[in-house]
Amino acid sequence: MPEHIPSELPEGDPFGADTLPYGVFTTPDAPDHPRIGVRYGAHVLDAAAAAAEHGSAYADLLDQPVLNPLLAAGRPVWQAVRAEVRTWLDGPHFHPLSEVTLHLPFEVADYVDFYASEHHATNVGRIFRPNAEALTPNWKHLPIGYHGRAGTVVVSGTDVVRPLGQRKAPADERPSFGPCAKLDIEAEVGFVVGTPAPANTPVPLGDFREHVFGVCLVNDWSARDIQQWEYVPLGPFLGKSFATSVSAWITPLDAFDTARTAPPERTHPLLPYLDDSAAEPGGIDIRLEVSINGEVITRPPFASMYWTAAQQLAHMTINGASLRTGDFYASGTVSGPGEDQVGCLLELTKGKGPYLADGDEVVITGWAPGPNGSRIGLGEVTGRIIAG
Amino acid sequence: MPEHIPSELPEGDPFGADTLPYGVFTTPDAPDHPRIGVRYGAHVLDAAAAAAEHGSAYADLLDQPVLNPLLAAGRPVWQAVRAEVRTWLDGPHFHPLSEVTLHLPFEVADYVDFYASEHHATNVGRIFRPNAEALTPNWKHLPIGYHGRAGTVVVSGTDVVRPLGQRKAPADERPSFGPCAKLDIEAEVGFVVGTPAPANTPVPLGDFREHVFGVCLVNDWSARDIQQWEYVPLGPFLGKSFATSVSAWITPLDAFDTARTAPPERTHPLLPYLDDSAAEPGGIDIRLEVSINGEVITRPPFASMYWTAAQQLAHMTINGASLRTGDFYASGTVSGPGEDQVGCLLELTKGKGPYLADGDEVVITGWAPGPNGSRIGLGEVTGRIIAG
Repeated sequence: MPEHIPSELPEGDPFGADTLPYGVFTTPDAPDHPRIGVRYGAHVLDAAAAAAEHGSAYADLLDQPVLNPLLAAGRPVWQAVRAEVRTWLDGPHFHPLSEVTLHLPFEVADYVDFYASEHHATNVGRIFRPNAEALTPNWKHLPIGYHGRAGTVVVSGTDVVRPLGQRKAPADERPSFGPCAKLDIEAEVGFVVGTPAPANTPVPLGDFREHVFGVCLVNDWSARDIQQWEYVPLGPFLGKSFATSVSAWITPLDAFDTARTAPPERTHPLLPYLDDSAAEPGGIDIRLEVSINGEVITRPPFASMYWTAAQQLAHMTINGASLRTGDFYASGTVSGPGEDQVGCLLELTKGKGPYLADGDEVVITGWAPGPNGSRIGLGEVTGRIIAG
Repeated sequence: MPEHIPSELPEGDPFGADTLPYGVFTTPDAPDHPRIGVRYGAHVLDAAAAAAEHGSAYADLLDQPVLNPLLAAGRPVWQAVRAEVRTWLDGPHFHPLSEVTLHLPFEVADYVDFYASEHHATNVGRIFRPNAEALTPNWKHLPIGYHGRAGTVVVSGTDVVRPLGQRKAPADERPSFGPCAKLDIEAEVGFVVGTPAPANTPVPLGDFREHVFGVCLVNDWSARDIQQWEYVPLGPFLGKSFATSVSAWITPLDAFDTARTAPPERTHPLLPYLDDSAAEPGGIDIRLEVSINGEVITRPPFASMYWTAAQQLAHMTINGASLRTGDFYASGTVSGPGEDQVGCLLELTKGKGPYLADGDEVVITGWAPGPNGSRIGLGEVTGRIIAG
């Protein structure tokens, strides 16, 4: 039953009128009608119904089972829809979050995962390659990334089955097979591409906002034992490809205007296509928090990332690669300088473990400073480990 | 104008009644009506039109702009459609190949590239990592692979623009930026997944035929200078992601029954999920030929690949990763033991070049032995290099 909700949210609610993230939901009375909703406090605005009631020009764009048509519509439409949604907040068509089912909000085209935290790359380098420099020589010159598996991106709340695979510790004579014994998290921030770009038209730093629709949280589940045995020389494959969890809510990029911050000082000169010294501040002050079974274990600061999302987009397209609507890229593990700011268990335990046990529930939340002391929320990412 | 063609093809034509690959084409009189065609000699059978005329139950499945619905229909349907197509070969609805436009035949879901030739991996290891063992310790235990960029898979005949990017030779003080100076080919064989598999249901070796619809040729264009600078530690990214060319024709897997061959002897014991010693022969005797500007430069033998396509599929899913219709995976560069059998210029020139020049046209062709001395053709992959 559509209902009105109080127009006043609790003070400090990160899902107020300055946030308004988009998702896809169904209700128990219409399980075959996924449609676009907007989170407002602890409720979901049925944007499709509200648009229809108001005769919005965007009613069709919002009555869709995925965000992709809205993503493809481009920034002027994103801005117009957001303005209209604001006017619907004191009307009906709200459902309590607890009464809806949330779905993967967009169809993922290509998925790219970066490696943009200097602290993470340094920590992991020391553990995985103890006899070499922690940072590879290229690290400060380009945002290192690789393609992940788009087909196994799942929405927050999806259980994660412990992967099977090969692993071989250096001391083992030969590889063995079995359930991953070092199942880890990676707390990341993800960026959803809306406006495509044709081949051979690299996206300059200044065009970032024209292409990226919104932001979410990511848990890039990682099987460390599988990964360590497989990843030389062509990079992570099965150690990552079993599941990547993303928020059910995509918070529009424009909501983070007050959270823009300068990235860390660059220690190496950058080639012009990556040089953001004269650009608007490319960092975003998103504060993450990771809990396992209800206990906060770390608070990674996204503002500490060396490479920005705009630089990652510029790099990803500099070789002529096209962008498609639904392309998705993640920051890489967010780790700050502090021991209580690292984004994965590998770092938190200095490679010694323990890692995730069956039944463990991981929750990643995040928010950024909004206007007038408000908070801009990112949809949480949750996942529970199931025995394989 | 639909026309009849002679039912007798020239002797040895690799696109006879034992091949019958599927593609997607348009004609000049209906450029907005892409539909499924079957190559027969130098003609294209309009399968959509033939199916409609014969009242085939598969008429809708064949009047599609991509093969994906046919791929998703599963092996019994693939076999039934193939049997029906054979009965249409003496009817009308043929167009000369020279008069149609061919399109990317399927929508690519995830794209994975393997590294399955021992000769290639050894040759490249010696060039890229001269101070280490050529084969990494994992190479004989698992088929190494990585995800590529699905959005830049293009159909044969598409021009390839020379990519831009960063490169840094070991002797350079810092990276420079510019057009790739070491643009290379990789001659590969690709496999198109039809029947999906849900998460956490690994595909055993014996189920390969239930999931893989067909086979094509691949040119995995590679920017060696970009690749060498970027690829440690997370693998190839921009050095590969600008373009991957595939055949316009997907030859059904069943057409290769007479070309099955045992893979090379395994030098290391394999874990059970990869152990094909008791399985049907997993190799396929496809003979590739690569020409540049009309001159044959190498003849790579696919039969020499250490890892088979069935093993690659089993490995790709062993960790619980799902398969989607349209998933596509390539063998990795096909290189045989001979110097005139290697699949890329890096190996052919022992890392010294020359590589591709602007204007160069690369053509990869391939065929396999069919019944009664016939040949089973794979669609050629062509591409011309354009200045960036």
